[in-house]
Amino acid sequence: MEIKELGEFGLINRLTKDIKVGNPSTLKGVGDDCTVLSYPDKEVLVTTDMLMEGVHFDLTYNSMEQLGYKGAMVNLSDVFAMNGTPRQLLVSIALGKRFKVEDLDDFYAGLHQACDKWNVDIVGGDTCSSMTGLAISITCVGEAAREDIVYRNGANETDLICVSGDLGASYMGLQLLEREKSVYYQQIDELNAKIRSAQKDGNDALVKHLQEEGMKIIDFQPDFAGREYLLQRQLRPEARGDIINLLRENHIRPTAMMDISDGLSSELLHICHQSHCGCRIYEKNIPIDYQTAVTAEEFNMNVTTCAMNGGEDYELLFTCPIGDHDKLNALESQGIRQIGYITKEELGCRLISRGDGQEFDITAQGWNPLL
Amino acid sequence: MEIKELGEFGLINRLTKDIKVGNPSTLKGVGDDCTVLSYPDKEVLVTTDMLMEGVHFDLTYNSMEQLGYKGAMVNLSDVFAMNGTPRQLLVSIALGKRFKVEDLDDFYAGLHQACDKWNVDIVGGDTCSSMTGLAISITCVGEAAREDIVYRNGANETDLICVSGDLGASYMGLQLLEREKSVYYQQIDELNAKIRSAQKDGNDALVKHLQEEGMKIIDFQPDFAGREYLLQRQLRPEARGDIINLLRENHIRPTAMMDISDGLSSELLHICHQSHCGCRIYEKNIPIDYQTAVTAEEFNMNVTTCAMNGGEDYELLFTCPIGDHDKLNALESQGIRQIGYITKEELGCRLISRGDGQEFDITAQGWNPLL
Repeated sequence: MEIKELGEFGLINRLTKDIKVGNPSTLKGVGDDCTVLSYPDKEVLVTTDMLMEGVHFDLTYNSMEQLGYKGAMVNLSDVFAMNGTPRQLLVSIALGKRFKVEDLDDFYAGLHQACDKWNVDIVGGDTCSSMTGLAISITCVGEAAREDIVYRNGANETDLICVSGDLGASYMGLQLLEREKSVYYQQIDELNAKIRSAQKDGNDALVKHLQEEGMKIIDFQPDFAGREYLLQRQLRPEARGDIINLLRENHIRPTAMMDISDGLSSELLHICHQSHCGCRIYEKNIPIDYQTAVTAEEFNMNVTTCAMNGGEDYELLFTCPIGDHDKLNALESQGIRQIGYITKEELGCRLISRGDGQEFDITAQGWNPLL
Repeated sequence: MEIKELGEFGLINRLTKDIKVGNPSTLKGVGDDCTVLSYPDKEVLVTTDMLMEGVHFDLTYNSMEQLGYKGAMVNLSDVFAMNGTPRQLLVSIALGKRFKVEDLDDFYAGLHQACDKWNVDIVGGDTCSSMTGLAISITCVGEAAREDIVYRNGANETDLICVSGDLGASYMGLQLLEREKSVYYQQIDELNAKIRSAQKDGNDALVKHLQEEGMKIIDFQPDFAGREYLLQRQLRPEARGDIINLLRENHIRPTAMMDISDGLSSELLHICHQSHCGCRIYEKNIPIDYQTAVTAEEFNMNVTTCAMNGGEDYELLFTCPIGDHDKLNALESQGIRQIGYITKEELGCRLISRGDGQEFDITAQGWNPLL
C-alpha cells in the first residue's frame, strides 16, 4: 500500500495503535508535542544513534524488520553500558517514495520485538520523507540509581578488564554478506554482457536461455550453512542486559564500562583515556567464536585484528577491582572473560601477543563510517 | 579542512570542547554511552525531530548556521508547547563527503546560539557520514512540574482559542526563496544553452562574454528588501518561550496547547480530536503580518489559506477558560490573539469567513512532506 493512501493521521494511527505502554515512568507516550516521563528518585539516561542507508546498513541484505530490531538493540546497549535499565524509545524514520506502508510495518515489528524483550515502551518519534536513502534515528531513555551508574572514567590501576560474549563475529558476518553481494552483481554483469552480445548476433534462442539463467541467479539463495551465528551477530545483534543482570546478582559492580560498537581497540582507548590509565590485553584471552576464526582464515584475515577492530559486537567491555577475580572466574562459563588489566597511564595501552609475549601498541582503527 | 584530517577523536574534541553545561539537572554531558540527567521532583519531557535535506531544507538558501539554529528552536518549541522548560539537547548529524569541518563548526555555532538563548545544554549525539544528503536529528529534554504540563487533550467547551505572534509568514518566506531559486536556475540554463551554441559556432569571444555574464548571475544577490521578516521567519524561527513566561506571569494556565509546525488547521484538528470537541475560528481574527499579506497578494495566493495551512510558524496555539478573557485581552499588544472558541464535538471544526460570516469546514492540509 502506498503511504499517501493512508494520509498523515491514518499513518500515525496505524503505527501507534498497537503500542501499549507498560512502564510506570511512562506518563504520556505518543500523541503530543513531547513524551512525558517520571523518574522521581532515579537519574535519567538518554542516548541517541543515527543509522544511514549505505553507511550503517545495506537493504540488499538487511530486512526492514532486522533494521528495526538492530536499531533498537544498539540503543538499549548504550543504556545497559551505563549499568542502567532502558525504559522508553523514540523513533524517527525518513523514507523515500520507494517504500510502502508494509515496509514501515515490518520496521515497527522489529522495533517491537526488541522492545518487548526488555519491556521498553515506544513513546514518540517522527516519520518523514527522504529524497534519497533511508535514515533512522533512535533515542532511548533509561533510568538508574545515581550510585549504580558506571561511567567510562572509573577504571583504576590493577583493575581486571573483562568482555562479555565473543568478538569479531559481526564483522565476519558483514564480510560474508558483502562477498555474496559482490559475487551476485558480478554474475549479473557477466550475464548481461552475454545477453547483449547474443542480441547483437540476433540469436534469440540464446538470449532466451541466458535470461532463464539470469532468473536462476536472482532466485539463488546463498548457502550460509554453518555461518548462521556470524550473520545473526551482524543482522540481529542482542544488547547484553542479561550480563548486567548477571553482574548484579553476583554483586559485581564494574568500575568502568562501555559497549563495544566501534571495536575493542577503540573502546579500550576511550576507557583508558577517560580514566587516565593504561592497559595490557592478552591476545590469547580475547574470546573468539569458532565460526569467526574459520571464516577469518578463509578470508585470509588476522582473527585478532577482526576481534580488536571489527566493531558492532555490542558486547560489554568493563573493568572490575582485582578482588572480584574469583567471582568473575566463576562466571566464565556464562560468557564473561577476563582479558587483561589496567596499568598506570605512562605504561600505555598494549596488546600482549599469543606466541612470544611481544607487546604491541593498541591504536584506534575503530569502525568509523565518517572517516 | 577535510573531516578525515581531524580523525574521530579530533572531531569529537573539536565539536565538544566549547560545550559547557550549566543546568543542575545535567549530571553528565557528552563523552559516555549515555547522557545522565537528574530531575528529582519534576517530570521529564522528551521530543525528537528529523530534518532531511531536500525535504525540510534546501542548502541553496539555508546556511549551516541557520540549520543548527532552526533545528534547535523547532525542538525547544515542542517543550514550550507542553508548558515545560527545555534543559538539554542531543544532536545527530549525518553528512556526505562534500562537507568540511567548517560546515560542522557553522552548524554547531547555530545550535549554540539557540541553546544559549534558552540556557539549554548540548549533552550528546552522533556525527556520522551519509552517502547522499544531509540528515539531522535533534532530541530535546525538558522538565515541568506534573501539575503544570499542558497536553493537547484538555480543551473544554466555551474555552477561548488563542495564538501567539502571526501566521503564514514562514510559508511566504519559503515561496520567495523558491521563486528566486527557480529564476536563478532558469537564467543559468538559458545561458548554458547560449554558451553551447556559441561553442558550436566556434565564436570564442562570445563564449568568453557569456561566461562573464554567468559569473554575474552566480554573484547576484536577490533583493529581499522589505521582506526580511518573512525570510527570518522561514530561516531563523524563534521558539516562543517568551509567551510561556508571559502566560505564567499573568497566571494564565492553558487547558490545551501545541506549537504550530504543520499549520493552524492541522493543529486545531489535533486539539479538537484529542479533546473530543469542535471549534469556531474567526477568519478576521487570525493574526497576519503586513508583509505576509502583501506577498500573498503578489503570489496570487489567499492569505487566509497561507495562514491556516502554511506551517513552520512555531507559534503557540492554546485554549483558555473563558474567564481569562480580560487577562488575555490585556496581552493582545504583547502578541496573544483570541481567534475563536471551543464547541461541542458534534458541531465540527469550522472557519467563519471575514465578509459574510459563512462557515467552512477546517481540513488538514498541513505541511506534510511524507505524502
